[in-house]
Amino acid sequence: MIRSPDNDKLKTIRKLATKSWREKLNLFVAEGEDLVAAAERAGWEPRFVLRAGEDVEPELLHAVSALGSGSRVIGVYEQRWAPLGGDLSVWLHAVEDPGNVGTIIRSAHGLADGPVILGPGCADPFSPKAVRATMGSLFARPPARAAFEELAGVRVALDAAAADPLGELSAPVVLCLGAEREGLASALLEAADATARIPLRAGGPESLNVAMTAAIALYEAANRMAGHG
Amino acid sequence: MIRSPDNDKLKTIRKLATKSWREKLNLFVAEGEDLVAAAERAGWEPRFVLRAGEDVEPELLHAVSALGSGSRVIGVYEQRWAPLGGDLSVWLHAVEDPGNVGTIIRSAHGLADGPVILGPGCADPFSPKAVRATMGSLFARPPARAAFEELAGVRVALDAAAADPLGELSAPVVLCLGAEREGLASALLEAADATARIPLRAGGPESLNVAMTAAIALYEAANRMAGHG
Repeated sequence: MIRSPDNDKLKTIRKLATKSWREKLNLFVAEGEDLVAAAERAGWEPRFVLRAGEDVEPELLHAVSALGSGSRVIGVYEQRWAPLGGDLSVWLHAVEDPGNVGTIIRSAHGLADGPVILGPGCADPFSPKAVRATMGSLFARPPARAAFEELAGVRVALDAAAADPLGELSAPVVLCLGAEREGLASALLEAADATARIPLRAGGPESLNVAMTAAIALYEAANRMAGHG
Repeated sequence: MIRSPDNDKLKTIRKLATKSWREKLNLFVAEGEDLVAAAERAGWEPRFVLRAGEDVEPELLHAVSALGSGSRVIGVYEQRWAPLGGDLSVWLHAVEDPGNVGTIIRSAHGLADGPVILGPGCADPFSPKAVRATMGSLFARPPARAAFEELAGVRVALDAAAADPLGELSAPVVLCLGAEREGLASALLEAADATARIPLRAGGPESLNVAMTAAIALYEAANRMAGHG
């Protein structure tokens, strides 16, 4: 039973709250019973797991929680990145909000067979907030990373100003989404194989939240590729 | 120019960070140029607006920001609730995350003609985080509030365990969604006129984030009601 805050495992967990340490150690933290169970289901061997009252005094575990939610279980895992692939995947550019990145990983796990591919400027998917937002999908479907030029398949850029909604699609398709405000840079829009918008009501907002756009585009693309479009 | 933190307007903004004061004063805060501009576009008269360097010393305005983002403009407005109505609206039960509530208000503004209706246990849509997440849609389309029994129209309960996806719909339709984990209580599922699920891949997550489910359901329902289903 760990009884000192100077314990090495607790020190590691504290370090992993920062991106620089996560990169240096190639590790990340999953907080809570649900996430640790999801890791186990997906066959991930933890570096270590600490359970409050079993391995460590509860107050000491609470004190190292990055989410401030008083987790009773914390697991530490090695970072893994997936290869590109699948008939349908998502590429993100400069999506800085970790909650959005994590939520999109969860949505893609539910709606597509390929990974979420992180381009430049995205939030770290292994940050505590992003991991939490994946609700375990991070373990079942780790993210990939690539520059736009490395993407294979039909690259469809989602753009609120595009002329048309999603049309006919044939695999492999990569849905490309940009930052919340700026959207995709014009150079990327030009380089994409197609652009598409989510049809919105006149007089409504100019765009939806990037995670909503991703969810709807994944849903629509999956439907169309399954022949229900 | 306000130069003292004891100024009454600054005191009011500080109070409005808590729900109890928001309810007592029937006011709320919108932080940032975009939100204040959205309020103006929607014809909302502010109780007052403070601009850094113009009406108030910048540091004093930063100090009262609930979002910690160093807003240069803060507006204070009276809370308004919309009546029920529209061909397509959303009812939420126990959606406790203010970001989810705000994002759903934005999505519904983009995809439906009716309001987001808050049932019991939902986050306050006038909290700083929720207001920010609406990206201004709160002003264009204020939320409503009602118990399930008060809803008019075809009440379609979204439920990850439902047998079928959304089918044919005729207006008015109210999409009903429950809390992130528990979903809707079984009594509500039974009382609903129909249940529907968002089809997810086998082996994927059991459900999507509630805001993603709402966005996809709104998109699909709007399509079907427009005859493109």
